[in-house]
Amino acid sequence: MNSRAGFENWIREALLQTESALDAWVPGDAPAALGEAMRYGVLDGGKRLRPLLVLAASQAVGGHPQAALRAAVAVELIHAYSLVHDDMPCMDNDVLRRGKPTVHVKYGEASAMLAGDAMQALAFEVLTPTDSHVPPALQARLCGLLARSAGCAGMAGGQAIDLASIGQPLSEAELREMHRRKTGALLQASVLMGAATGAASASAWAALSDYGAAIGLAFQVVDDILDVTQASDTLGKTAGKDAEANKPTYVTVLGLEAARAEAQALRRSAHEALARSGLSSGACLAMLADMVVERDR
Amino acid sequence: MNSRAGFENWIREALLQTESALDAWVPGDAPAALGEAMRYGVLDGGKRLRPLLVLAASQAVGGHPQAALRAAVAVELIHAYSLVHDDMPCMDNDVLRRGKPTVHVKYGEASAMLAGDAMQALAFEVLTPTDSHVPPALQARLCGLLARSAGCAGMAGGQAIDLASIGQPLSEAELREMHRRKTGALLQASVLMGAATGAASASAWAALSDYGAAIGLAFQVVDDILDVTQASDTLGKTAGKDAEANKPTYVTVLGLEAARAEAQALRRSAHEALARSGLSSGACLAMLADMVVERDR
Repeated sequence: MNSRAGFENWIREALLQTESALDAWVPGDAPAALGEAMRYGVLDGGKRLRPLLVLAASQAVGGHPQAALRAAVAVELIHAYSLVHDDMPCMDNDVLRRGKPTVHVKYGEASAMLAGDAMQALAFEVLTPTDSHVPPALQARLCGLLARSAGCAGMAGGQAIDLASIGQPLSEAELREMHRRKTGALLQASVLMGAATGAASASAWAALSDYGAAIGLAFQVVDDILDVTQASDTLGKTAGKDAEANKPTYVTVLGLEAARAEAQALRRSAHEALARSGLSSGACLAMLADMVVERDR
Repeated sequence: MNSRAGFENWIREALLQTESALDAWVPGDAPAALGEAMRYGVLDGGKRLRPLLVLAASQAVGGHPQAALRAAVAVELIHAYSLVHDDMPCMDNDVLRRGKPTVHVKYGEASAMLAGDAMQALAFEVLTPTDSHVPPALQARLCGLLARSAGCAGMAGGQAIDLASIGQPLSEAELREMHRRKTGALLQASVLMGAATGAASASAWAALSDYGAAIGLAFQVVDDILDVTQASDTLGKTAGKDAEANKPTYVTVLGLEAARAEAQALRRSAHEALARSGLSSGACLAMLADMVVERDR
């Protein structure tokens, strides 16, 4: 798995697995339009970066495949619910996501809020199967990692800072702290949930945590760069929204060239962390770090 | 614990424990106003029926006290988040809750949505302590029970039916199914989470499940009765909302007298289930069933 072609095969296989599990585990028969809205919000779209990180980290530590697939789906459900809620009129008021009308545009605000709420609950349902062979202690560990990355110390906390920061000047340190929570926490948790499915030593765990933190930040820096350099049709969402909303970004705080240099520095940090981990099968994680920085949407 | 005075002492002690744990575990220092909005949404108000059910069921099976307290707080967090989201303009658009302005009135819609989201995540954080003696397998079991009762097969699914049913005639069976999910699932889960903290036999588990289903439905029947018979200042929330919104209720479907008879029948079912459970320390559960039916707010 050191070749580009091998990585591309791995990605294809991992995405197939993820899509098929999402399709199987997100119920279509939930009452009224709830199931339909949930499926609309999470199926058929998205880069699936978080599931890929879970599966790659699990592979790197020789982890439990069933548990890794459940963790991959759970973390994507949390990500997808956060997009559904973020897009609503009281938050970003966005009408386009993954090239399609957003959930509240299609199903109404009340259904979008409920669908997001139910997706968060479903993430924890998926992590706690009653009829499978995922060991209960691992289920509890995965629930704990996911809940902490989604809650006020993680994603929701970052969104609260984001909300409060509109029109406010932020220092680079404050911006970093906001994104560490808002985007970084769930990306880092993806890596750690994957690692938790196997037997990582304390030093490998710490190195994977550093890797996750580096790509978590890199992802957001690149997002901010793409928001000013790419058109909406490439991104599949409305471009230039941050500037328009007067939100601080890495580009407004650092400037475009310095933001690009920062993304490269974070990529190097991620690779160094992998080298420190001592894991011999971290090739997919290394290539995912490159993918995060080199992506154009 | 068969006397009224003993029960009142037990309630007082259980409420003190619950309030103190909520105060300790709902963080005030979350970023921006997020922590403040979360605390506003869950502290200092509410009957705490769900925590009382968890603690009483745990006591009935000689359960793990630390796990029971965590389950009590977690289930109340789920209940409280659902109220915060329900009250928002895109749902019930209510401005009064527990005698105070609702969370979105005080903190804005975006913060209310985020606070609700973070409260749901916090419920699962509380259930998965990393530094305590709650056995991991029990943590996983509690997460699974809570997630399933909160998600599309439970509370969120019931809310979706509710949303779709405004202005629609519902049969008694459909109304019952909506409430079984919307309110009943979380009340039943409270009982079962309490039972899971100890060693309930399969037959005791089934009986407690029946008890939980009966009081879950009774709670809603009584809610519908109070909505037409009590004033807003007694309820601490806006009375008569359901009729005004043209929502089907037990009173509109059955009539007031038949709804009262139904509440009494469900109380008897709850008592019969407790008798079937064979548990000798279910006195608090029995008195909680009476409290659910006799309450005036």
